[in-house]
Amino acid sequence: MSFDSQTTHKTHDIKALIFDVFGTLVDWRSSIADQVKKHLSPKFSLDWYAFADAWRAQYQPSMQKIRSGEIAFCSLDTLHLINLNQVINDLKLMGIDDHTKQQLNLAWHNLNSWPDVSPALKGLREKFVIAPCSNGNISLMIDLARYNDFHWDAVLGSEIAGNYKPHPVVYQKSVQALGLQPYQVMMVAAHSSDLEAAAKQGLKTAFIQRPFEHGPLGSFNHHLAETAPLCPVDFSALDLGDLLIQLS
Amino acid sequence: MSFDSQTTHKTHDIKALIFDVFGTLVDWRSSIADQVKKHLSPKFSLDWYAFADAWRAQYQPSMQKIRSGEIAFCSLDTLHLINLNQVINDLKLMGIDDHTKQQLNLAWHNLNSWPDVSPALKGLREKFVIAPCSNGNISLMIDLARYNDFHWDAVLGSEIAGNYKPHPVVYQKSVQALGLQPYQVMMVAAHSSDLEAAAKQGLKTAFIQRPFEHGPLGSFNHHLAETAPLCPVDFSALDLGDLLIQLS
Repeated sequence: MSFDSQTTHKTHDIKALIFDVFGTLVDWRSSIADQVKKHLSPKFSLDWYAFADAWRAQYQPSMQKIRSGEIAFCSLDTLHLINLNQVINDLKLMGIDDHTKQQLNLAWHNLNSWPDVSPALKGLREKFVIAPCSNGNISLMIDLARYNDFHWDAVLGSEIAGNYKPHPVVYQKSVQALGLQPYQVMMVAAHSSDLEAAAKQGLKTAFIQRPFEHGPLGSFNHHLAETAPLCPVDFSALDLGDLLIQLS
Repeated sequence: MSFDSQTTHKTHDIKALIFDVFGTLVDWRSSIADQVKKHLSPKFSLDWYAFADAWRAQYQPSMQKIRSGEIAFCSLDTLHLINLNQVINDLKLMGIDDHTKQQLNLAWHNLNSWPDVSPALKGLREKFVIAPCSNGNISLMIDLARYNDFHWDAVLGSEIAGNYKPHPVVYQKSVQALGLQPYQVMMVAAHSSDLEAAAKQGLKTAFIQRPFEHGPLGSFNHHLAETAPLCPVDFSALDLGDLLIQLS
């Protein structure tokens, strides 16, 4: 009884859910490793997961230059390509032409979602307006949605805000675009830094466990995945299906 | 044969269709008249279609203040509310409280689409990325899509551009968000001014006939509807179903 009433109290105001995408909804690591292997093998023989990790490792530093105002806003596609060149140089992979790099860069447009995501989003959309609030650009989000059969109500996030999460303006602009108040919007993510920043702007928060975002048990970066939120949240769920149950 | 090869030539490059919404996809006039009547009758007895026409007549002048730089960008919801107050004052309708005005203003979020639109959009989405490129704000587009069962890939238009059509930046930002070149995007509209402005930015254009946008034959503003494009276009269609056939 007390649990029900608490849940009702928490969910009563929520009109929209906005989602982190990389890691929370899609398994970027194995998808990138697979696609890079398809493009570069057998010419190169590499640890393809390490390639994916190295590419992703450039992600936060490249956005930080924009968040700090050091460089003007550009799309994540642009940053991914700059970062790809960096990884290729670091690994001393010679002879990869520009066309191949462009194709490789599109790997981020075709990432497999975790198995629970597509059916859970369908259920969540029956109750809430749903939109990505990702650092990915709009065309990247369009392609990911088509690839995984997501039906978004709109595409929010970095491109409409002209900045990158966790900069406050990204949450503010996303809430504004929904025509709602911050307490009526819940940020859903597998990363506490994202949720903490959203909560500071008045949004509700839901943590989703993605224990294998950085690889299976035993892999080098496995420990980077958060198995529990590092900040107070309104909901904490095993996966998106569990969140749907908690919000029903 | 020559028609087929011409069509193939025209359609070959097109990857995305972006749509004008008010008038082209939805019948704003009868929908607004119906909803205003529901809110204000029987307290007031009016020509509800004339009310809808008067409200819509404020649309272009209110946006022009933003296009010209006279005032800062604000959402169409905000402009609609300002314009509604103007109409209420002009008609000397006394005693309408703020809550009722807010409810009336949401009438623009619940407009009926023309009967051909919903099925044709489903077919067009199988072949193209589709998005509204409307002067309506994102939350208005979300509500219209849910009301009419549209499945947009993204919501483009005025809010992501911070300006109103036919300002060039709205078409430019929409093309940029799609990650495409202008010639790969086609603007679909029932209004030549919209198509002419899109064409100037390098987009392809499709004209859709909406002979009853401003009312049936015999109504005061019926003549405002365009029955043929007033500028060169790539496609001219009887309705959206006809466009689907021409693009198939």
